[in-house]
Amino acid sequence: MARRKKVYEGKAKILYEGPEPGTLIQYFKDDSAPTAAEAAPAAVEGKGVLNNRLSEFFMAGLNAIGVPTHFIRRVNMREQLVRMAEIIPLEVVVRNFAAGEISTRLGIPEGTPLPRPIVEYYLKDDRLTLPMVAEEHIVAFGWATQQDLDDMIALALRVNDFMSGVMLGVGIRLADFRIEIGRIWEGDYMRLIVADEISPDSCRLWDLRGLVDRGDGQPIPEPGPLADVYTELARRLGVLPSNVTHTVKPTLIN
Amino acid sequence: MARRKKVYEGKAKILYEGPEPGTLIQYFKDDSAPTAAEAAPAAVEGKGVLNNRLSEFFMAGLNAIGVPTHFIRRVNMREQLVRMAEIIPLEVVVRNFAAGEISTRLGIPEGTPLPRPIVEYYLKDDRLTLPMVAEEHIVAFGWATQQDLDDMIALALRVNDFMSGVMLGVGIRLADFRIEIGRIWEGDYMRLIVADEISPDSCRLWDLRGLVDRGDGQPIPEPGPLADVYTELARRLGVLPSNVTHTVKPTLIN
Repeated sequence: MARRKKVYEGKAKILYEGPEPGTLIQYFKDDSAPTAAEAAPAAVEGKGVLNNRLSEFFMAGLNAIGVPTHFIRRVNMREQLVRMAEIIPLEVVVRNFAAGEISTRLGIPEGTPLPRPIVEYYLKDDRLTLPMVAEEHIVAFGWATQQDLDDMIALALRVNDFMSGVMLGVGIRLADFRIEIGRIWEGDYMRLIVADEISPDSCRLWDLRGLVDRGDGQPIPEPGPLADVYTELARRLGVLPSNVTHTVKPTLIN
Repeated sequence: MARRKKVYEGKAKILYEGPEPGTLIQYFKDDSAPTAAEAAPAAVEGKGVLNNRLSEFFMAGLNAIGVPTHFIRRVNMREQLVRMAEIIPLEVVVRNFAAGEISTRLGIPEGTPLPRPIVEYYLKDDRLTLPMVAEEHIVAFGWATQQDLDDMIALALRVNDFMSGVMLGVGIRLADFRIEIGRIWEGDYMRLIVADEISPDSCRLWDLRGLVDRGDGQPIPEPGPLADVYTELARRLGVLPSNVTHTVKPTLIN
């Protein structure tokens, strides 16, 4: 095939021009980007293949219940076709349980349930290290309007309801996650969609399996990080490449 | 223990006075109630035990993400402690795919994805057979206010987002479901909560597992009803009595 034009390369993904106007090809690498909570971990071999499948699974599920995302379809092992969106330069974080940044900043022990899901914003700017910002900053600097923010919160909370359900279904607690949101235009009408990816790289997942009261007076263990998170999550959701329930056949194009 | 006062007995459940004011004990029978979609099926032995566990699983999950329900805790194999609510006399149905009543009424083939989740209301009145009603009737007859309806739609759609996620996580499509909603008072403040039960008796579930394109040119099968739905759903979610991940120990009290 013809050489494609690279639009953007980040730590974890590459974006290429898509086959039609308004589309992009999103390529999943094995490297990870740093998050608001921690520095970038080392590359994990095959991670990009699993995250491509997992993000497909979550975004197709969101599309199906009317939560709009940029996902169109997976095209091969490491690539998916997505809608081109104007990305709002914020990481939107939804927290159900205290961990990472909020625990450090506010002195809340890790694992504490929060009074309600809390939505936070972190500024994406390559010169900075994802500083937290408030709505006040966002509107004042014009990164998003107040109306955008209201729509972003509604979108983020719907993603939280759905993703909390998916994870609980397979014995996992969704402690927190981050998404990116973009603007697309349909004629004169602008709307916000979930962009980037949803994967173990963007979700903090705690394993609830095996936390049984054995009746022997021993304390019940606390939920901890899900071990071997990419493979284990793909296995529980039935989306390992060898056990696919989707109808897209992988065809290697590069 | 002392003989409890029976507050209500329906086809599928019995409500007893609870141990504290404002609470009830909800007992799950093996019989099923008729739905807006079909007549009552025959009793299934052990169904009440599984529905007690499944409703606990879903309602505790909803409570944890801030969708209020009447569920407090499971007390034994067939009973759970719930908050007493003033039930709004409507079955609230959320449909993602056409099936049952909406297919018949509007001539939409079963399995057709709907343009967006559609919320419907059916009047609960023992003298009638769950007739569909519109918001116009509900407000005119005073069964709920317009503000109640707005809150009920928001609540029903959050339940849909969460339950669609839970089901998708274990390879199941949530075609539609029904809930009951009740009012509780906290001082002068009234709010709406999800009441009754969430179980296979209130959800239409289609199995997505095994719907693979085998690459042999044969068409991919359509999703069909989940076979042996009570046991299979409990097994996939890991809530069979022999494999419980919750911390409540069953103690038989009757």
